[in-house]
Amino acid sequence: MTPEEFRRHGHAVIDWIADYWSRIESYPVLSQVTPGEIASTLPATAPERGESIDVIMSDLGKLLPGITHWQHPSFFGYFPANTSPPSVLGDLLSSGFAVQGMLWTTSPACTELETRMMDWLVDLLGLPTRFRSDSTGGGVIQDSASSATLVATLVALHRASQGTWNQEGIRRRYTVYTSVQGHSSIEKAARIAGIGDSNVRLVDVDPTTFAMRPDRLREMIAEDRAAGAVPALVVATIGTTSTSAIDPLPAIGELCRQEGLWLHVDAAYAGAAAVCEELRWTHAGVEYADSYCFDPHKWLLTGFDCDAFWVANRRELIQALSVLPEYLRNAASESGAVIDYRDWQVPLGRRFRALKLWFVLRWYGAEGLREHIRTGVRLAQRFARLVETDERFEIVAPVPFSLVCFRLRPQPGESSQDTDARNEELLRRINASGALLLTHTRIDDRFVLRLAIGAPSTETRHIEAAWALIQDLATELSHETTNRS
Amino acid sequence: MTPEEFRRHGHAVIDWIADYWSRIESYPVLSQVTPGEIASTLPATAPERGESIDVIMSDLGKLLPGITHWQHPSFFGYFPANTSPPSVLGDLLSSGFAVQGMLWTTSPACTELETRMMDWLVDLLGLPTRFRSDSTGGGVIQDSASSATLVATLVALHRASQGTWNQEGIRRRYTVYTSVQGHSSIEKAARIAGIGDSNVRLVDVDPTTFAMRPDRLREMIAEDRAAGAVPALVVATIGTTSTSAIDPLPAIGELCRQEGLWLHVDAAYAGAAAVCEELRWTHAGVEYADSYCFDPHKWLLTGFDCDAFWVANRRELIQALSVLPEYLRNAASESGAVIDYRDWQVPLGRRFRALKLWFVLRWYGAEGLREHIRTGVRLAQRFARLVETDERFEIVAPVPFSLVCFRLRPQPGESSQDTDARNEELLRRINASGALLLTHTRIDDRFVLRLAIGAPSTETRHIEAAWALIQDLATELSHETTNRS
Repeated sequence: MTPEEFRRHGHAVIDWIADYWSRIESYPVLSQVTPGEIASTLPATAPERGESIDVIMSDLGKLLPGITHWQHPSFFGYFPANTSPPSVLGDLLSSGFAVQGMLWTTSPACTELETRMMDWLVDLLGLPTRFRSDSTGGGVIQDSASSATLVATLVALHRASQGTWNQEGIRRRYTVYTSVQGHSSIEKAARIAGIGDSNVRLVDVDPTTFAMRPDRLREMIAEDRAAGAVPALVVATIGTTSTSAIDPLPAIGELCRQEGLWLHVDAAYAGAAAVCEELRWTHAGVEYADSYCFDPHKWLLTGFDCDAFWVANRRELIQALSVLPEYLRNAASESGAVIDYRDWQVPLGRRFRALKLWFVLRWYGAEGLREHIRTGVRLAQRFARLVETDERFEIVAPVPFSLVCFRLRPQPGESSQDTDARNEELLRRINASGALLLTHTRIDDRFVLRLAIGAPSTETRHIEAAWALIQDLATELSHETTNRS
Repeated sequence: MTPEEFRRHGHAVIDWIADYWSRIESYPVLSQVTPGEIASTLPATAPERGESIDVIMSDLGKLLPGITHWQHPSFFGYFPANTSPPSVLGDLLSSGFAVQGMLWTTSPACTELETRMMDWLVDLLGLPTRFRSDSTGGGVIQDSASSATLVATLVALHRASQGTWNQEGIRRRYTVYTSVQGHSSIEKAARIAGIGDSNVRLVDVDPTTFAMRPDRLREMIAEDRAAGAVPALVVATIGTTSTSAIDPLPAIGELCRQEGLWLHVDAAYAGAAAVCEELRWTHAGVEYADSYCFDPHKWLLTGFDCDAFWVANRRELIQALSVLPEYLRNAASESGAVIDYRDWQVPLGRRFRALKLWFVLRWYGAEGLREHIRTGVRLAQRFARLVETDERFEIVAPVPFSLVCFRLRPQPGESSQDTDARNEELLRRINASGALLLTHTRIDDRFVLRLAIGAPSTETRHIEAAWALIQDLATELSHETTNRS
C-alpha cells in the first residue's frame, strides 16, 4: 500500500471512527451475542490472495454485535477504560512512527518524552518530588497496573533478599500483604514472582470504610516473622476495585518504614483524582511509597494501555531487572547518561506510548483534566443522591470518587441468599436491556451492584436515565415476585 | 473534542504520517541527538490551559531529530520491527473502539477474532494442529516474545511442581536450559519467575552453525538432577538473535519428552519464514513443542506489539495462571464455553490487537506474506554475495533468513582486539553517516556486524547502496590506519 493509498484509506477509517462515536448510543452497551456467534461469521482460513481495504472495512459490521462498547456514555461497569479523541490521535502517530523504544538509542525522543510526561504527572498529581527523574526516582509507562505491581514485587524481593534474588532466585519463604479488598493482580504478581498465592496475606478491613487495618497488618507481619517467613512487600490501595476504599497510608507507611518493607501504592483507578487539589486528601501518606502507580487509561482520558508507574529509587529497580546481552550494548547506555526503559519493565520491547499522553495532557491542559474528574465525582454524587431517595435501595460504601456501590435492601424476613438473588436478577436485566452496563462485587458476602463513571461523554441525562431504568426494572421485579408469592 | 473535530484532525494526522513515510529516506536512520537534547525542547510542566491540536502537531518537528527511524528502508539493526499501512489502519480502529478484552464478555469480538487469527496463523505457518483452538491447544497475542517466554516458564514451573507452584511458590531449585546464543529474555523470565539467573544453564553450541548441542543438553540435565535440582524448561530457538541459528528441535524435543521437560520454542524473528513452504525445514521438530511463539511485529508486517504465542495444552496454562475475584465473575465464563484471555497472560487488561493482524493477513493474503519473506531472504542473499566479493570481509555465520553477520577479516599479525577495534570503528562510522543503521554482536568473542532486513520498503537499491557505503568507509578506515602507521 503506497503512502497515497494509505492517505485515502486512512481518511476512511478516521471517518468510520467519527461516525461510530456519533452513533455509539444506538448500540447495546453490553454485547448480546452468544459464544461462537462472531467466530461463525469469520472464514476458517486466511485468504490466499490479498483483499481490498474496502472489503475488510465492510466486514466491520460483522464484528459490531460482538463489541461491548466501553466508550458508550452509559458504560458503568468495572472501572472505566476511557480514551479520548486526542489520545487516539497521539496513538495513531505512535503507530505511524512505529519505533521501538527498548533503549534510549533506539529512539531518544521515545524515552525523553516519556520521562518528561511522567515528571509532568508528578506535578499534576502532587506526588512526592523524589519520584521525579531529576531526583532519585523516576517514572515509566507500563501496560497496566498488573505489570506495575509485578515490577514492584520483584524489586521488593531484591531488597528483601539483600540483593541476591536476581542471581539466586527465591531461596526463602517471602510474604506479601494487601487488604482483603486488594486487587487480584497482587495475588497474580506474587504467583508469577514465585512467592505463591498461599504467601499473600489478606489483611482485614474496617467494616464501614473497607480500608486496611494497620493494627492487623502489624500483627500479621509479626506472626509471619515468628514463623520464619520474610515479609517483603505491602500493597496499599487508593480506590479499591470493589468499593474505591482508601487504605490509611500514613499508618501503613510508618509501619513499612519501621519494618523495612517495600510499600507499593496501587491507585490504578483513583490516582487520577489527585489532579484536583480538593481530592488530594485521598493521597495522604503517599510520601511513604517506594513505588506508586495509577492508570491514565482508566480515568484520565488516555487510551488503554497506559499505566503510570514511579519508584522513589530508580537504582534499586535497575539493579533488580537489568540483563545486558552484547547485542544491546551501545555507547549511550554505557555513558550512564540515559534511561533505558527496558530495565524498568518485564518485556524488552516497547511502543511510543508517551505520545498519546502528550496529546491528552496538552489538549485538555491541567484545567481540562480537573474538570473531567470533577464531572465524574459530581455525577456519582448525583447518582448516589438518587439512590438514597428510593427506600428500596441502599448505598453500601462511601463514595469518595466516581464509583457508587448499591443494592436492593433485604426485605423483612428475607434470607441473604434471596436478597442476593434479587440483586443478581436486577443486574442481569439491567445488562440485558442494552441501555447501560453495570457490574457487581461482593462485600461482606453480599451481592452488590457497582456503577462506575468516567467516560468524557457521560452527562447528567445518562445518569438520570440509568437510574430511571434501574427503578423500573426493580419495580418489574418486585411485581413478579409479588405475583409468584 | 467532538467527532467532527476529530474527523478534521484525524485526516491531518493521517496526512502527516503519509508525508512522513514518503520522506522517510531524507532522515538519518539513527537519531544523532545527544542525551537530554530532546528533553530540553519540552516545557518543564504541563500547560494549565488546553492547547490546540495544530500547535501540538507543529511541535512534532521538535521530536523528529530524536527519532531513530525503524521504518526506514535502510534500518538494518537489531531485528526488524516493521509495521505496514494496513496494520496502522487496523490499530487505529482498535484505538477507536477502545475496548478492553480481559474477558470474553467485555467484548466477545475481541476474543473471537483473536482466536480465529491465531488459528489462521497455525495454518499459514504449518504449525502443529494441536496448537489450534479446536484441538487441545490455542493461541493468544502477547505483547512480546519476552512475555511469551515468561508465560511458558510459569506453566513449566507449574508442571514441574506437580501443580503446587501456583499455591506454594518456588520451594525447590529449578533449572532452565537454553543455548549460549539464546535470547536475554530467557534469563530475564527465569529471574522474574524466581528461578534466578544462576539456574539458567547455557548449553554449548556447534562451532559452525551456532546451534544448541543436544548431547551437552543431555549432560547438563543429568548433572543438575544429580545435584538435586529440578529441570523444568528448555527454550530452543529458531533464529537466534546473534546469528539466526536454528537449534536442532528433533533431538531436543525427543530429549524433553524423555525427561518430561517443557519445551518452549522461541521463533520470535524467524517464525514468520514458515509462511514459505521452502523455509519450513527450519521448523523441523516443532511438533515436540509444548509452546511456541513468533512475532508478527518483527518480520510479518504487523506493528509492535504483536507476539503470537501458542500452547499445545491450554488447560495447563489456565490452571497455572487463573485468579478469579468476584468482580470478574460472569455467566459466560462460568459456562466454560468461552476463552478469557486474561488467564493466558501476565496483565489483566488487553487491547484489541487482533484487528491489526486481521487487516494485515487479509490485505496481503498468504501470497503477499510469502512474497514479503522471499524478498527479505533474496536481499540478504544478495548482500551476502556482495560481501563475499570483497576479500577484506568475511561472512561469519550461515544466512538461512534475512540476517547477515559479517566483519572485516583480521589482518596478518593483527591482534584480535585490534580487529575488533577496526570493526567497532567501522560500525560507528556507518551509523554516524545516518544513511543506514546496523548493530553488532559478539560471536566466539569476536566483534561482528549484523545486517537484518525486513522493511517492506527495502529494495535491491538500498542493499547495494548500503554495501557501497560500507566498502567506502572500510577503505577510508584502512587509509587512515595506513597513514598512522
